[in-house]
Amino acid sequence: MDARTYIEEHRGEFVAALKEWLAIPSVSADPDRHGDVRRSAEWLAAHLKGTGFPSVEVWETGGLPAVYAEWPAADPGAPTVLVYGHHDVQPADPAEEWETDPFTPVERGERLIGRGASDDKGQVLFHALGVRAGLAASGADAPPVTLKLLVEGEEESGSPHFADLLRSRRDRLGCDVVVVSDTTMWAADTPSMCVGMRGLTHCQIDLYGPERDLHSGTFGGAVPNPAAAMADLLSGLHDADGRIAVPGFYDDVVEIGEEERALIARLPFDEEEWLATASSGAASGEAGYSILERIWVRPTAEINGMWSGHTGAGGKTIVPKSAHAKLSFRLVPNQEPLRIQEHVRAYVASAVPAGIRAEVAFGGPGVRPCASDLSSEAVRAARAAMSRAFGTEVLYTREGGSGPEADLADILGAPLVFVAVGLDDDRIHAPNEKVEVPLLLKGAESAAYLWEGLAQRG
Amino acid sequence: MDARTYIEEHRGEFVAALKEWLAIPSVSADPDRHGDVRRSAEWLAAHLKGTGFPSVEVWETGGLPAVYAEWPAADPGAPTVLVYGHHDVQPADPAEEWETDPFTPVERGERLIGRGASDDKGQVLFHALGVRAGLAASGADAPPVTLKLLVEGEEESGSPHFADLLRSRRDRLGCDVVVVSDTTMWAADTPSMCVGMRGLTHCQIDLYGPERDLHSGTFGGAVPNPAAAMADLLSGLHDADGRIAVPGFYDDVVEIGEEERALIARLPFDEEEWLATASSGAASGEAGYSILERIWVRPTAEINGMWSGHTGAGGKTIVPKSAHAKLSFRLVPNQEPLRIQEHVRAYVASAVPAGIRAEVAFGGPGVRPCASDLSSEAVRAARAAMSRAFGTEVLYTREGGSGPEADLADILGAPLVFVAVGLDDDRIHAPNEKVEVPLLLKGAESAAYLWEGLAQRG
Repeated sequence: MDARTYIEEHRGEFVAALKEWLAIPSVSADPDRHGDVRRSAEWLAAHLKGTGFPSVEVWETGGLPAVYAEWPAADPGAPTVLVYGHHDVQPADPAEEWETDPFTPVERGERLIGRGASDDKGQVLFHALGVRAGLAASGADAPPVTLKLLVEGEEESGSPHFADLLRSRRDRLGCDVVVVSDTTMWAADTPSMCVGMRGLTHCQIDLYGPERDLHSGTFGGAVPNPAAAMADLLSGLHDADGRIAVPGFYDDVVEIGEEERALIARLPFDEEEWLATASSGAASGEAGYSILERIWVRPTAEINGMWSGHTGAGGKTIVPKSAHAKLSFRLVPNQEPLRIQEHVRAYVASAVPAGIRAEVAFGGPGVRPCASDLSSEAVRAARAAMSRAFGTEVLYTREGGSGPEADLADILGAPLVFVAVGLDDDRIHAPNEKVEVPLLLKGAESAAYLWEGLAQRG
Repeated sequence: MDARTYIEEHRGEFVAALKEWLAIPSVSADPDRHGDVRRSAEWLAAHLKGTGFPSVEVWETGGLPAVYAEWPAADPGAPTVLVYGHHDVQPADPAEEWETDPFTPVERGERLIGRGASDDKGQVLFHALGVRAGLAASGADAPPVTLKLLVEGEEESGSPHFADLLRSRRDRLGCDVVVVSDTTMWAADTPSMCVGMRGLTHCQIDLYGPERDLHSGTFGGAVPNPAAAMADLLSGLHDADGRIAVPGFYDDVVEIGEEERALIARLPFDEEEWLATASSGAASGEAGYSILERIWVRPTAEINGMWSGHTGAGGKTIVPKSAHAKLSFRLVPNQEPLRIQEHVRAYVASAVPAGIRAEVAFGGPGVRPCASDLSSEAVRAARAAMSRAFGTEVLYTREGGSGPEADLADILGAPLVFVAVGLDDDRIHAPNEKVEVPLLLKGAESAAYLWEGLAQRG
């Protein structure tokens, strides 16, 4: 039986398993859900055992557990591949905007709806189906490459313990290629491979003014208002050209080359369609760059949330005692998150007026940006495998999002390739996340072909 | 028995009644509390009947009820006085910052702690004690002036129906003087009379961007972020000199005269002490004006609250779909709230970038600023009554806060005087509101003397 037929015949079983996993609310950012993240790891470990991986382990970290599975190739000379994904998910709030319960997955036509369906449980799980499909096609009882899966539990929290885990387990994780399945394709009918991702660092800024909320009549106009100080600080993050005004922010940015710029311009990009996918009334951003360049190869400073004072019903005429904001910064090669953190701290300190005290807390060391080497054997094999699965040419893209991929490549000393089938309209990190089941099946098929291709090239 | 002795002897009874009233959470801004506002009106009506007012009525409005009580003088030629106060209170949030339950009043030494203790139930209730003390002193069975009390239930919501009430009840409310008991004195040992109040208009601004929260990696840097647009809009409210940058905002402002400026400069103002009362690390505000001038005779634009995107635990890397802010503007003679609302709407419309939709909702028509005529008979009588009660000279101040006093004066065609005993450190509109019971008793005494004084002058 060929891989494609095997996959089609096991679709029902695959979807049933994924639904079971999606029902576990493994929100790593929420301390109340940490037990669920652990349950999610255990579910995956059991599933991978059932798939046939001879060795499956739950690995403890300084935080939430990762799952590791290994299936040696019959041929000891075969290359070794490490597949990376994550089993934790984003928070589901605002809960009231979900049309279905975020943790009660629902099938609607070809779609499966639920938090984590696309990011990243669906994309992890297609590897279990892919390896079985490959075995069904070859008739062998082991994959053509030594297959290692490493599925972490803190990706949506910035992977604070992932680098340590990689370092401490480096011997077990040794590999020739790292395959990452946590990104998106250009479109359902235009398969593509990601060749780079932005880095990330995020923080909370707290500004404190008077020790208590003050009556805005009795004191207003004569004391500094922390909400106003926050507005000034946040407004000052960008200049009139949409460039980030934090001193030093661009110091290490590698400007996009003319070749890559031309490559990006070749993609069939339709601004109106993109705006519809973004559900935004207009595009905006840094002057001098196209929309795709702004998302893929330029850094950002984004306000993710803010709050201060009275946010309930009616009016409350106060000078609030504090103001808070959550910011994230997307980074591009060769920005280092820790250097960016220093620049942001210095900016905040310089932006705060007398009478206001500032605290800046970063959510861990951050995530470094990364990029694939387009001339590598691994990138060529992955492109060929996806082309075979989808039956069409596979283009290159980048990803505006972030993952611990730079650490994977650096610490394990192996090249990165991205094989993933999410879509930009999957509503990842938003209410009503979904995944297209047929694309997950194409992902499984691509994986089966890729192991075969790497074994031949290896 | 003289008025002072009567008041001292009835202190326990007075405090017990006030505690009963404070236990009713009459928060007019919270629709869930509207039943309590009604209960509060009924409580007051019953109390005033018990005090001896021959005529007590609960007056319905387009919103929450007011209480009206009337006690005619024996002499039909005696002047008529209308006392104004309010029985609704500010919301109690943030609830976790109260050291005691906001609606379970607690005595600590000379203080009574609870929402509304100072603003304004304590100051309304001293009038019931004051009129009885006057009767005890005179031996008469009616006050020396015809006494009318009008206690509204929507002051903390901007008195949206108060002007209509005054107009529709103008015949009943006819008076020679309006006495307002809803302000503060300079200090417990420096009694003073307020001679003006700022006006107020407040609004909520809602900015809407993408139709849903977006992944800040997938879309960040290329779509307008409503939180960033809000920060720009709020930051642009003031220029570098602390002046309000909304075009047209100062058009109708009457600059302070040199005489009043000198009067304000005579007050024993200690900036360090004031900062301690404000619990603020620094003063700030409009260049070219003293702290007291900024609070009393200059208008403000204040952020009372704001919120957008993720405000829970941990990070959430989104471009939020909306951002919200609550603003209040304190106004000075002769700014008209409705004109200011037009200026603010125009400013918001001009400040919003492409792809962001703005809505501005004002909380009613606003409150006009007002001022007393310092040369009037009523101001002189009130000053003399307070001097007698406190045994010391009474100075003039203004109040930075707002009430429906301009409407009272304009619609009823009577001069305003302010007789009130709150303090700036009473934490009104903030957690742990309190009142100094001895000052409430001085308020009652002042009222008793004032009715006598007005009858003699009248």
